[in-house]
Amino acid sequence: STGGVGGAGGGVPPSGSFPLAHLSKFLCALLAICCMCFLGFADNVLDLRWRDKLWLPLCASLPLLVVYAVDGGGTTVIVPPLPLLTKLLGPSLPLGPLYYLFMACLAIFCTNAINILAGVNGLEVGQSIVIALTVVANNLIQVWRWPEGPLHDNNLFSLYLMLPFVGCSAALMQHNWFPARVFVGDTYCYFAGMTFAVAGILGHNAKTLLLFFVPQVVNFVYSVPQLFRLVPCPRHRMPGYDAATDRLVPSTVDFNLGELRAPGRLVVRACRALRFGVVRIDPATQQVTMSNMTIINLALHACGPMREDRLTLALLGVQAACSALALLVRYQLAYLFYDVVK
Amino acid sequence: STGGVGGAGGGVPPSGSFPLAHLSKFLCALLAICCMCFLGFADNVLDLRWRDKLWLPLCASLPLLVVYAVDGGGTTVIVPPLPLLTKLLGPSLPLGPLYYLFMACLAIFCTNAINILAGVNGLEVGQSIVIALTVVANNLIQVWRWPEGPLHDNNLFSLYLMLPFVGCSAALMQHNWFPARVFVGDTYCYFAGMTFAVAGILGHNAKTLLLFFVPQVVNFVYSVPQLFRLVPCPRHRMPGYDAATDRLVPSTVDFNLGELRAPGRLVVRACRALRFGVVRIDPATQQVTMSNMTIINLALHACGPMREDRLTLALLGVQAACSALALLVRYQLAYLFYDVVK
Repeated sequence: STGGVGGAGGGVPPSGSFPLAHLSKFLCALLAICCMCFLGFADNVLDLRWRDKLWLPLCASLPLLVVYAVDGGGTTVIVPPLPLLTKLLGPSLPLGPLYYLFMACLAIFCTNAINILAGVNGLEVGQSIVIALTVVANNLIQVWRWPEGPLHDNNLFSLYLMLPFVGCSAALMQHNWFPARVFVGDTYCYFAGMTFAVAGILGHNAKTLLLFFVPQVVNFVYSVPQLFRLVPCPRHRMPGYDAATDRLVPSTVDFNLGELRAPGRLVVRACRALRFGVVRIDPATQQVTMSNMTIINLALHACGPMREDRLTLALLGVQAACSALALLVRYQLAYLFYDVVK
Repeated sequence: STGGVGGAGGGVPPSGSFPLAHLSKFLCALLAICCMCFLGFADNVLDLRWRDKLWLPLCASLPLLVVYAVDGGGTTVIVPPLPLLTKLLGPSLPLGPLYYLFMACLAIFCTNAINILAGVNGLEVGQSIVIALTVVANNLIQVWRWPEGPLHDNNLFSLYLMLPFVGCSAALMQHNWFPARVFVGDTYCYFAGMTFAVAGILGHNAKTLLLFFVPQVVNFVYSVPQLFRLVPCPRHRMPGYDAATDRLVPSTVDFNLGELRAPGRLVVRACRALRFGVVRIDPATQQVTMSNMTIINLALHACGPMREDRLTLALLGVQAACSALALLVRYQLAYLFYDVVK
């Protein structure tokens, strides 16, 4: 089993015939990215509802999944070689349609992930560049290790998407770095997210891609109580600005503990017990002042107030460290999830 | 020579292989249409410049042309059998790259054509439905005449695009008919125009499609003096509304004949001599009051003030008559442009 990596298709076409499979991959990549740019722009202008932001990327990812299937993509994952797990599930698990569900969810997640970890000058573009460079590094390693065959071609395809993306993001970065003269809005975030999803899915690197999104995954999981309204969530959760010191400080949300249902109260108490962000509860009135649940506010809580560009650099440093770790996991611990390190 | 109609590809695939050529056609159709929806929405929000409205459809049509080429599209047109012409050019003319230029221009023209003949309740959607039904009629005739082969498949492909388009346009029409509660903006106009261009190009009916746009072509040619600023052009040229009689009247533009260059003065004098629209020139001051150069204002000038829905019906009647004539030309006079009536 190839564990979803590799698969047939994408190779050198029989001489004389046009490489239609290759053309289809480029066309559906452009289609998905174009749809998400449109969605992002519409969201900027019209402030779409949350549910629309979920099913629209799903629709846009359908052509991707069709082309992945036609391209002979694998849907089997390796069960980690732990005694209980392999006894229960066998050495490998043919996920079939569930693997397509995973890829659709990946497209939805990527599209929104960068948009959630946002609101600081240079952060959206910066994290996109770090992730893109990590994908490029991974592709180059694979292209170097597999001088021919579908793995070679799939990683080349991913490179063809990622290199121009790095170029235009670097150009945008010049204007978006603190103090920003250009702001990215949802359009760039959705564009970047879908570009990663496309490169991951059509490059047959979907699982590896998720490894490069660890800070975004952590941020999403940490945000879940606010996103699903267990805890009140303001429209924007970006850090506050302290004009006196020219530093950013954690932004907070105020509410009464009595208004929350049991799961919300549990979240607030857990955050206070773990010192996870600012949590102040007035014992008399049960009035809560709590920092908004993003890793941006968490970084400001942990390291103290920072100037905006220092904060961006700190978060990008975390992203880069996670990327280095992810590549290490991918090539040193991969036997847990892949039968051979490919 | 097949005169650009027909061509190879799109047929039943060899058993066991996936019809990638067919998938590519659908993907690039969706890509072009999605790009133009995006452009239309951006134009509504940002009021794009004219030059951007020209090169963006050009970019969006490039994938179409690639797929047309891969699909084995013909690029040869038949020279009308007039003695001088055939002596000069031979019986048929292999246009090669020029035919691709024609198709790119067709995409640009279609995208903007419906947007120019607009501004009256129900007119944009109504003309789109009339054109779409004409395309459907043409496709059905072709599918019926050619029970198999590429001509059959290409016209079926066009039907697959046109039938859902007619459905959603009819639904929109209910809300856009006088008195309109929903307005279409540039988004629908660009969407409709590109859908026609895609159906025409990938259905290998590009030249026939142009026959169905005769009112739009006439409107465009009549508009050229204003579009290219030979004569002053206000931002909107839709008819004026006379509240006292509840009728629409031609909208006018005022300027001094002395401000114009020679070509502009020639246009004004020609319109007055031919009684083409309202043209009043004060002999003493050379001050001109001239109706805006659209066939909408021309219809109001010719038939007198009308209520908005009557005007739409009149213009749609003209469109339908032109469509009937176009189908007649296509199947009775086609020997002028096609070697066999296919």
